[in-house]
Amino acid sequence: MSAGFSKVAIIGLGLQGGSIGLALREALPDLATTGYDRDAATRARAAERGLVGHVADSAGEAVAGADLVIFCVPLGAMAAAAEECAASLSPDALISDVGSSKVSVAEALGSVLPNHAIIPAHPVAGTENSGPDAGFASLFRGRWCIITPPEGADEALVARLSALWEAMGAKVELMDAAHHDRVLAVTSHLPHLIAYTIVGTASDLEEVTQSEVIKYSAGGFRDFTRIAASDPTMWRDVFLSNKGAVLEMLQRFTEDLTALQRAIRVGDGEQLFDHFTRTRAIRRSIIEQGQDVAQANFGRDAS
Amino acid sequence: MSAGFSKVAIIGLGLQGGSIGLALREALPDLATTGYDRDAATRARAAERGLVGHVADSAGEAVAGADLVIFCVPLGAMAAAAEECAASLSPDALISDVGSSKVSVAEALGSVLPNHAIIPAHPVAGTENSGPDAGFASLFRGRWCIITPPEGADEALVARLSALWEAMGAKVELMDAAHHDRVLAVTSHLPHLIAYTIVGTASDLEEVTQSEVIKYSAGGFRDFTRIAASDPTMWRDVFLSNKGAVLEMLQRFTEDLTALQRAIRVGDGEQLFDHFTRTRAIRRSIIEQGQDVAQANFGRDAS
Repeated sequence: MSAGFSKVAIIGLGLQGGSIGLALREALPDLATTGYDRDAATRARAAERGLVGHVADSAGEAVAGADLVIFCVPLGAMAAAAEECAASLSPDALISDVGSSKVSVAEALGSVLPNHAIIPAHPVAGTENSGPDAGFASLFRGRWCIITPPEGADEALVARLSALWEAMGAKVELMDAAHHDRVLAVTSHLPHLIAYTIVGTASDLEEVTQSEVIKYSAGGFRDFTRIAASDPTMWRDVFLSNKGAVLEMLQRFTEDLTALQRAIRVGDGEQLFDHFTRTRAIRRSIIEQGQDVAQANFGRDAS
Repeated sequence: MSAGFSKVAIIGLGLQGGSIGLALREALPDLATTGYDRDAATRARAAERGLVGHVADSAGEAVAGADLVIFCVPLGAMAAAAEECAASLSPDALISDVGSSKVSVAEALGSVLPNHAIIPAHPVAGTENSGPDAGFASLFRGRWCIITPPEGADEALVARLSALWEAMGAKVELMDAAHHDRVLAVTSHLPHLIAYTIVGTASDLEEVTQSEVIKYSAGGFRDFTRIAASDPTMWRDVFLSNKGAVLEMLQRFTEDLTALQRAIRVGDGEQLFDHFTRTRAIRRSIIEQGQDVAQANFGRDAS
């Protein structure tokens, strides 16, 4: 029994695709895994690391005979990747992905593969690294994987896909695609946009040199650069594909920032203190629910 | 030889004061260390942990006979703490601190202790934890300590204070106080303000529940909550005491954010990609210069 699938094809062998391959090989050794990446160097490295059982030379070869195909490419490349596979897909192959916004992915894959069952998924796990060397088998362990089945999706298929993610150590949650896009806009997309912005702001200063910014980054800036080191192609596509929700969350953020800015300008210490106290509770809950570790991380030496 | 001092008094025994005490006791066992905190529970805990050689019952008792007094209290409490010590200070005691903004500290301490040598300092190191249990001896190891001597400061005193910080493992940099305040506004103060803001924004959403925000925080939000868990009193005082520089950096940040917001709205993928690529280089430099570790940190399980 391999969680209801006999052969899983992974299209795109970067951080996500590579981690899925490694996690499946570790958790379900009997499950056949194939993979393909349009970049030849990535394919070579994927084969060296054994990210999947077999690295194919074409997308078509990778998906031939697969009963599950997981697209792990940037959102903007989903449709093209699906087209590359279309002719070789078995008609009963389940189509899924790991994209960070779900409404647009469902549309992109659905337009190319109108006759296939498509059940999008989004593992809420990642690192600031990308490429075929970034993946590791435990990436999804204890993390949430949000599956967004379209209306009328085959419940048996949803159950099989859920079981596969649980086999990789993930906790599965079913969610409406549009709601997913709003939740992730605030928990992931907005934080990345903010981090990318502030790192750019700091590097553009004239009177404060970039070497000073780097030297004294341990005061907090450092942790933003970590997020701002994430894959540029992936994130460009995230913001373009989840534009509506991101812009709305950004508007709310800007209003709140303006309020704190005013509190600083007028010297309203009480408002600042109240706000800063409130945000502490959220942190505690995240640690209690196992989504982060309590170990002090600003002082890396403490670890 | 104890780095040129025979007795160091630490006023305020939280993360910074406690770490200084532990670092000094480890690095310079012959150096006498005393400490005081106005909070009785903190004093008791400090004595249990042995943060300093002797925890005094009053500020005056702590500083009596000390040739160096380091104020490790929130910026807004510096003047009051100095007043508590004034009567018991030996006239040749060097006065220093660890405050995160330096122009205002120099003014606050100078107004209370006009006849003492005052050489402010700021170790650029910390964690999201606070209180007497948060300190550890290696907090300053490999981190920068910025010393901001006033004009005409005694170079011998500056050298002795620098040597003490180097004994704790810090790398010392001398800087003009006003320039320090601008550098830290962008590398530390603005990042904290942004993090506090976005955590507040997320917790105020109606259609996305707070439990969803917490559940899916591993997508990036998590790392902001870490910063936003820092001590509220300390940060209220930082923003009020470094108001000018913080508001200026905030203005630049807002302009940059608006530009990216527009790029998303009009679908300018090229501008987004170029910006996101540029910010990666900064991250690399920070790791190369030892101010952070390269180990993937989003995927905490990887560590």
